[in-house]
Amino acid sequence: MKKKKLGRVTKKVVVPDMLRQILIHTVARRAAIVTLIQKGAVRGICHSQPCCSSDVELTSVRYPGVQRGSYSQLSDKHVQHFKSILPKERVITDEDDIAAHNVDWLGMVRGASQIVLKPKTTEEVSAILKYCNAENLAVCPQGGNTGLVGGSVPVFDEVVISTSLMNNIISLDELSGVLVCQAGCILENLDSYLSERGLMMPLDLGAKGTCQIGGNVSTNAGGIRLIRYGSLQGSVLGIEAVMADGEVIDCLSSLKKDNTGYHLKHLFIGSEGTLGIVTKVAIQCPPSPKAVNVAFLGLDTFDDVLRTFKEARSGLGEILSSCEMMDMLALDAATTNLNLQRPIGEFPFYMLIETSGSNGTHDEEKLTSFLEGLMGSGIIHDGTVASEPSRIKLMWKLREGITEGLLHDGYVFKYDISLPHNSFYAIIPELKTRLPAEKVGRICGYGHVGDGNLHLNITTPKFDPAVLKIVEPFVFEWTSKLKGSVSAEHGIGFKKTQYIHFSKSQSSLNLMKDIKKLMDPKGILNPYKVLPAQH
Amino acid sequence: MKKKKLGRVTKKVVVPDMLRQILIHTVARRAAIVTLIQKGAVRGICHSQPCCSSDVELTSVRYPGVQRGSYSQLSDKHVQHFKSILPKERVITDEDDIAAHNVDWLGMVRGASQIVLKPKTTEEVSAILKYCNAENLAVCPQGGNTGLVGGSVPVFDEVVISTSLMNNIISLDELSGVLVCQAGCILENLDSYLSERGLMMPLDLGAKGTCQIGGNVSTNAGGIRLIRYGSLQGSVLGIEAVMADGEVIDCLSSLKKDNTGYHLKHLFIGSEGTLGIVTKVAIQCPPSPKAVNVAFLGLDTFDDVLRTFKEARSGLGEILSSCEMMDMLALDAATTNLNLQRPIGEFPFYMLIETSGSNGTHDEEKLTSFLEGLMGSGIIHDGTVASEPSRIKLMWKLREGITEGLLHDGYVFKYDISLPHNSFYAIIPELKTRLPAEKVGRICGYGHVGDGNLHLNITTPKFDPAVLKIVEPFVFEWTSKLKGSVSAEHGIGFKKTQYIHFSKSQSSLNLMKDIKKLMDPKGILNPYKVLPAQH
Ligand SMILES: Cc1cc2nc3c(=O)[nH]c(=O)nc-3n(C[C@H](O)[C@H](O)[C@H](O)COP(=O)(O)OP(=O)(O)OC[C@H]3O[C@@H](n4cnc5c(N)ncnc54)[C@H](O)[C@@H]3O)c2cc1C
Ligand SMILES: Cc1cc2nc3c(=O)[nH]c(=O)nc-3n(C[C@H](O)[C@H](O)[C@H](O)COP(=O)(O)OP(=O)(O)OC[C@H]3O[C@@H](n4cnc5c(N)ncnc54)[C@H](O)[C@@H]3O)c2cc1C
Repeated sequence: MKKKKLGRVTKKVVVPDMLRQILIHTVARRAAIVTLIQKGAVRGICHSQPCCSSDVELTSVRYPGVQRGSYSQLSDKHVQHFKSILPKERVITDEDDIAAHNVDWLGMVRGASQIVLKPKTTEEVSAILKYCNAENLAVCPQGGNTGLVGGSVPVFDEVVISTSLMNNIISLDELSGVLVCQAGCILENLDSYLSERGLMMPLDLGAKGTCQIGGNVSTNAGGIRLIRYGSLQGSVLGIEAVMADGEVIDCLSSLKKDNTGYHLKHLFIGSEGTLGIVTKVAIQCPPSPKAVNVAFLGLDTFDDVLRTFKEARSGLGEILSSCEMMDMLALDAATTNLNLQRPIGEFPFYMLIETSGSNGTHDEEKLTSFLEGLMGSGIIHDGTVASEPSRIKLMWKLREGITEGLLHDGYVFKYDISLPHNSFYAIIPELKTRLPAEKVGRICGYGHVGDGNLHLNITTPKFDPAVLKIVEPFVFEWTSKLKGSVSAEHGIGFKKTQYIHFSKSQSSLNLMKDIKKLMDPKGILNPYKVLPAQH
Repeated sequence: MKKKKLGRVTKKVVVPDMLRQILIHTVARRAAIVTLIQKGAVRGICHSQPCCSSDVELTSVRYPGVQRGSYSQLSDKHVQHFKSILPKERVITDEDDIAAHNVDWLGMVRGASQIVLKPKTTEEVSAILKYCNAENLAVCPQGGNTGLVGGSVPVFDEVVISTSLMNNIISLDELSGVLVCQAGCILENLDSYLSERGLMMPLDLGAKGTCQIGGNVSTNAGGIRLIRYGSLQGSVLGIEAVMADGEVIDCLSSLKKDNTGYHLKHLFIGSEGTLGIVTKVAIQCPPSPKAVNVAFLGLDTFDDVLRTFKEARSGLGEILSSCEMMDMLALDAATTNLNLQRPIGEFPFYMLIETSGSNGTHDEEKLTSFLEGLMGSGIIHDGTVASEPSRIKLMWKLREGITEGLLHDGYVFKYDISLPHNSFYAIIPELKTRLPAEKVGRICGYGHVGDGNLHLNITTPKFDPAVLKIVEPFVFEWTSKLKGSVSAEHGIGFKKTQYIHFSKSQSSLNLMKDIKKLMDPKGILNPYKVLPAQH
């Protein structure tokens, strides 16, 4: 990968030139970008699953150490009973139809479920769980199946409960911005519905075209706008969920403030389907911004990335809505593998900075002065700014396409870690010295730098246990030493249960296990996930 | 109370005139306001407790239905043991020194504790609880004792554990804005510390000069900036807490994102000391705004209040940091009883709207255009705008002084409810028809209209059971019918346990009780609070 470095120029001279250069880019790239739109390379389209076929090794084979719990085996009697709860077309037992539900988006894990149930109502979910609990049948709740830690598919033969038909919007209060909907609503559909009414979803992520709000809530998804709109722990106002025994917990408050007792909803936010199945969500939606701008910048060093973040926070203040970084190899995964066009020259680092505000003129002034400052101090050398929706989408596609682009390399070792800002990127050069170059395709980093959240990715032509051995538990130990999190936003799922202790104390883990036992005494809900196996 | 109504004028003519009028007010009132500053009438000073004396009836007398649990009685042996854990000057048994810890801020409830313990470290809290749990001694965790629902003082003779000496700041990461501190730090002190470093606390409330961050977290306090900076559920990143048996739960993550297992911190946010004692808090602090403006407006009807809120949300957008309303009688409680000056003419309703932003010129433009719009459409008739810190403080003092001002009427029946916007105010005229005029001093409403949170207050010369009978459970039933919350931000405490079911389903209450039993099997932590008595 060749690397072109633009010569630095001194502050006084450079400002107007650089700004002009940005503007030239803005215009010059338009034609190329229009072509991209025509190709359908727009953000929000989550690629169809890469491997829903039997190519993927069965989890039970790849992870021989994991033992099936002493749950019942699915029998005809069970299937018949499910058909008494749901119309038979929503009790799916055809092997081909089930295949996609057994494999995760990354093609990392494959279960062997023989049945997928598709309830439409809370009552149906309740009846299913009540029965499964009584019959000691393990279940795996599944939303859009875009999770990246193997939590959304069965490990063995768990009954898959898919929320994909629970997709009704229940209410929207346009004045307060509170949306109430079923868990199976697809994030992008909710966002479109809201945008017609001057509102938006408070979260956004690359998988928006496929992931469901119930899955987002269950994974406490972060995404690209957390820096502005906060976490789901703040914006989810209420939840309705069904516990393992079928009991419906109605804490579907749609009030911004409700301090009446323990905040039970948080037991379901981020517990990845192990404490209950989320059936409805009430969420606070902010007004759509009247103006959005995106700047795509090229930088020489990671220090410059940090400096830019700091300047963005102070200069863009309340209108800063995203602050993303990607290194050269990460962006290249999107441009080369997905055939997208890099909008500026080649740099060791890129940033995508978005502003969203209520006054276009003010926002533009803030952005211009921010960029002038950066160029004046020689921090950025090249960049382009977009304000039309179609161009903004294209810039985002570059950032969001990385996850998918990486898959085209072969197998992806994926880490999603939180780190202190000052040691955010250091693990990447470190890994480059540790891993034999001939074994890996790409070692790269990108992510939500504004939130201290790095997506570290290592690609290999195919799954390689030797690489795994070098990388794990090294990455977790490194993270733990820096008091980081071994899973910033993707969760623990199946893949990280044995590493949770790198981020959680033993007393916390004990309390988690006690809560699990309290709420799901037979352990039927998403077993082998989140908590490390009991000894 | 006389009511002066300014004649309405038609849109076209009024805009420039009204704006001028606002400006005239701004200048004309300066002198009067300077006098007020000199009198010390500035925001953030929480009045000294109104009644820490034996004037207040003992809770055990006023509420004869509440039975003391079968906890041990404090003995000399216990006191001696406490003196082995803490230096003896932090084991307080002198009746006079204890008095203030037995009475709440409102002078509504009074306990009969014989001991107050003042630990300085987590280890001391842990040793105390371990012993109390073993000895079956009930405890009452106490922060600044500004809680408004009787949760912060003992009901009978519980051991008071005061966090007031746990007031160390542990760390501040100036780049990420993450503050870590002990639970006993006073909110205002934290805010001052941060403001010297370009940051601010994400919450603010009238009691800031006395309340502690541990108390704020334990009550999930809302306050006047929730509309902008969100709830503590979003901004608290981590918590260290001690459980009933002395076990320390360390979930003191200082990361913005950490999805490793269940989010245990939320068991402590808003559980009012019934599940554990919060010892440390990590909290995300936003940058201080570069410009702050406050507009104090007079309005004729509550519909106009709602219209103004709507306009503020769309016109002020991301810079809107407070949207408060108060009716004429509420403001009068501050002006008449605390001898403060009303900055504009007399109106049925007032609003205090604050903007905080990163660019003073932009903010002023937005505010001017917002106010012009409102005046043009005849929604507001009088107002004044402040941008200097001292004048801003004075305006806030008017709003924040209401809580204290009301106390001067005598006894206050206090309700803190969340309601849908369109029926936000209707309960006040309804109560005016229900309550005999000669029995009540004042029936008034104020609060965080932007968050749908009404503080409904009825004052009487002294506690009057006849008034109580008319008001309760009527207020709770009314709120419940509208799917509101019977406690928006103050919590349940001692005073509202029997009303929690108006806002929470039986299955939720059952789960809460199960969690309480799991985490505090002997029920020693803040008994008689939050959960309704077991039957
Ligand atoms: C291209 C791409 C980009 C991504 N970007 C981000 C990002 O920026 N930030 C981020 O946080 N994540 C990101 N993710 C991962 C993210 O976790 C998921 O996309 C999303 O939140 C999961 O939603 P889902 O409906 O697909 O859930 P699934 O994948 O179906 O399930 C995820 C977990 O939640 C459980 N679950 C699902 N629905 C329910 C329910 N109703 N009740 C109880 N449990 C349930 C499952 O059992 C599983 O454990 C990305 C994924 C992809 C493919
Ligand atoms: C003038 C005034 C204005 C107010 N305005 C607002 C407002 O705008 N918004 C709002 O939400 N509230 C408001 N309040 C009430 C508010 O709940 C409290 O002021 C504050 O959050 C409580 O903090 P504190 O330290 O005084 O806690 P305390 O009053 O001492 O305790 C409150 C509760 O928390 C528990 N507790 C305290 N510390 C701990 C700890 N470390 N660990 C475990 N439990 C603990 C206590 O047992 C008690 O149940 C106001 C109060 C006053 C007097």
